[in-house]
Amino acid sequence: MTKAVRILGLDPGLRNTGWGIVDSLGNRLTHVAHGVVHSDAKDELAQRLSQLYQALLKVIDLYTPHEAAVEETFVNKNPASTLKLGMARGIVLLAPAQAGILVGEYAANRVKKSIVGVGHADKNQVALMVQRLLPTSGVVSADAADALAVAICHAHYRGIQALSLS
Amino acid sequence: MTKAVRILGLDPGLRNTGWGIVDSLGNRLTHVAHGVVHSDAKDELAQRLSQLYQALLKVIDLYTPHEAAVEETFVNKNPASTLKLGMARGIVLLAPAQAGILVGEYAANRVKKSIVGVGHADKNQVALMVQRLLPTSGVVSADAADALAVAICHAHYRGIQALSLS
Repeated sequence: MTKAVRILGLDPGLRNTGWGIVDSLGNRLTHVAHGVVHSDAKDELAQRLSQLYQALLKVIDLYTPHEAAVEETFVNKNPASTLKLGMARGIVLLAPAQAGILVGEYAANRVKKSIVGVGHADKNQVALMVQRLLPTSGVVSADAADALAVAICHAHYRGIQALSLS
Repeated sequence: MTKAVRILGLDPGLRNTGWGIVDSLGNRLTHVAHGVVHSDAKDELAQRLSQLYQALLKVIDLYTPHEAAVEETFVNKNPASTLKLGMARGIVLLAPAQAGILVGEYAANRVKKSIVGVGHADKNQVALMVQRLLPTSGVVSADAADALAVAICHAHYRGIQALSLS
């Protein structure tokens, strides 16, 4: 492997979708960028989904990741919240697929385990470990930290994932 | 009103998404087309969402509707089903929004009431009434009938909807 693989991690949410990009070369990870795209809660639902979609297409266009990864969504006990999260997740999976990028999906405890070493870590532990693993990232918001975490998880597991996708 | 308004009705589902198009001129409705777009259950989720999205963009490109309408999703008791439906619904709302078309949303019992006259009609009653209201449609599958029903509902309510959207 002589060229870094650029990975886009995504943490879906209707109001705030976190994204994070890392370059993976051998067992070395480099932080590239991270951020949060928003939709305006005052707008119609279709418009809000369009805002997220267009913002994600811009991130993909700007950083040209090779692969993407999304955490498997936590299913909320509140069905209305689950439905909203499902809509945001649909957009977050669609954007890389439309750009021709394969999207890996990882269970939440698998992501945590690959970052913190245990499957039941809390959000703060994940954010701290992300900043330790990617020292040039600086301070990262919770949504973007979760997105970087799933990108790091994908960097660890992509060999296995590539086999199961082929 | 001298020009017909073309309305796209949509009934979201991850495997089968129904669509139906009617022209509305004054209190006259004309059937234009209907169908069902599919995703392949064997494919990855992101690919399936991409299949639905591209098929819907083709329908919109072919028939150039002016407005769109989607039924408010029935929230299933099974959270995994609700999440899947949410993802399909996200795509179904996004496609017209990306094409610059406003999307109206209607509660299921409002759709039924505007078609059958009562809010608790079953799927067969809706399909029969859709075929009576749109005699040139021929026999319509359940998914497409639901899509035509929400298009008809939007034709009835669009005056009020236009006010609330403006």
